[in-house]
Amino acid sequence: MEIKSYKKNFSYSYSYGIFPTVELIRAKPDKVVKVLVSSRYKSQSDSDIFKLCGRYNINTEVNDKAINRISPRENNYVVGVFSKYDCNLNDRCSHIVLVNPGNMGNMGTIIRTLTGFGLSDLAIVSPAVDVFDPKVIRASMGSLFSINFKYFENFDNYKEKFHNHRIYTFMLDGAKSLKDVKHNDYKPFSLVFGNESTGLDSSFSSVGTSVFIKHTNRIDSLNLTIAAGIAMYHFCKI
Amino acid sequence: MEIKSYKKNFSYSYSYGIFPTVELIRAKPDKVVKVLVSSRYKSQSDSDIFKLCGRYNINTEVNDKAINRISPRENNYVVGVFSKYDCNLNDRCSHIVLVNPGNMGNMGTIIRTLTGFGLSDLAIVSPAVDVFDPKVIRASMGSLFSINFKYFENFDNYKEKFHNHRIYTFMLDGAKSLKDVKHNDYKPFSLVFGNESTGLDSSFSSVGTSVFIKHTNRIDSLNLTIAAGIAMYHFCKI
Repeated sequence: MEIKSYKKNFSYSYSYGIFPTVELIRAKPDKVVKVLVSSRYKSQSDSDIFKLCGRYNINTEVNDKAINRISPRENNYVVGVFSKYDCNLNDRCSHIVLVNPGNMGNMGTIIRTLTGFGLSDLAIVSPAVDVFDPKVIRASMGSLFSINFKYFENFDNYKEKFHNHRIYTFMLDGAKSLKDVKHNDYKPFSLVFGNESTGLDSSFSSVGTSVFIKHTNRIDSLNLTIAAGIAMYHFCKI
Repeated sequence: MEIKSYKKNFSYSYSYGIFPTVELIRAKPDKVVKVLVSSRYKSQSDSDIFKLCGRYNINTEVNDKAINRISPRENNYVVGVFSKYDCNLNDRCSHIVLVNPGNMGNMGTIIRTLTGFGLSDLAIVSPAVDVFDPKVIRASMGSLFSINFKYFENFDNYKEKFHNHRIYTFMLDGAKSLKDVKHNDYKPFSLVFGNESTGLDSSFSSVGTSVFIKHTNRIDSLNLTIAAGIAMYHFCKI
């Protein structure tokens, strides 16, 4: 395995930074190939990376060159190298569904937020950004490693597989205001969001309950991550 | 006036892109110095930038070199050049207060969101990022131009000036869950948020009602913009 700048077709990826790497080790220890450590890394007694790796039998390597090669403009003291893996979604749990997400930072922030609201399942409808890109992992602060995610070729594939879920599609011209939506607790829900620029197309208005988050006409739309955060706050009872 | 890369000490700044520049012209026509247009700009019948500038008596200049000099890595067809200005906050309106915000994208996103929820006043407690930096303007999608904002040296200065506002401080160890907070409509409110990494220090727990947004312990905290978006959704009746 060569340690070089991440590309989507690699079978492995990287977690940059101590915090996301600790999350990786704790959630997916069997996927960690090794942990690169900078010579400038200073151990912190409560979370020493060498000790943690030792506990999980994970190889560490002090290698400034490799770290600089894959994250040249950053100041990373710790980088986790891990093998990519597949997950399945839990059909008894509620889901977040991102249709054609185009921004890695947004996808990472949404993953972090869904974890914060007690969700653990993310469906991604292609074409979409690569969930294993280090930029997504960083924005998720390592939350990616503790959720289930799965790509679907189109929304119908998702819907067929999870036909028991109650679907809420978030659209500027949704039929119901979020504040008027009361979710029936007996079924899991799917909160569906479109691409940052284009949203969900009109075909999504009839696949479930279409919902809008009321805002003034002084802006075109709320930012995707803000809309998703508000929706999760509204739906999740934690 | 030299058109060169933006610096904080300039008396002028730039709006990159058509949409933010249109917002600039509409909201603050008297502050616009000129509008730079790329030779690749293609007029759109419904929002031609030359027509719009003509209507407001604003100079336009086709100048690819200047555009490339100030935004080299981007594909901007239109750049607004404007003089910076001061604002005052409206003491009858509710406010968002950002204490030591450190990230320009976050500040811009929060400005866009507050505009979406019908607010128009932003207090910024120093040290803080520069609200006129083009990165803030872009993330706000030009909403910056239609709000009032003001810097304060410290929170006490803000509080003395707006002593009639009901203050809500957002803190991980807040006293009340947001879902249990009912705002009394007779007074304007101030929603106070701390820095991205450090939040508000413990002195803020006694300046008003301290509030937390409940989340699982699987994350350290919600992202600042998400927390602010949820708080505005909860408080604002639009």
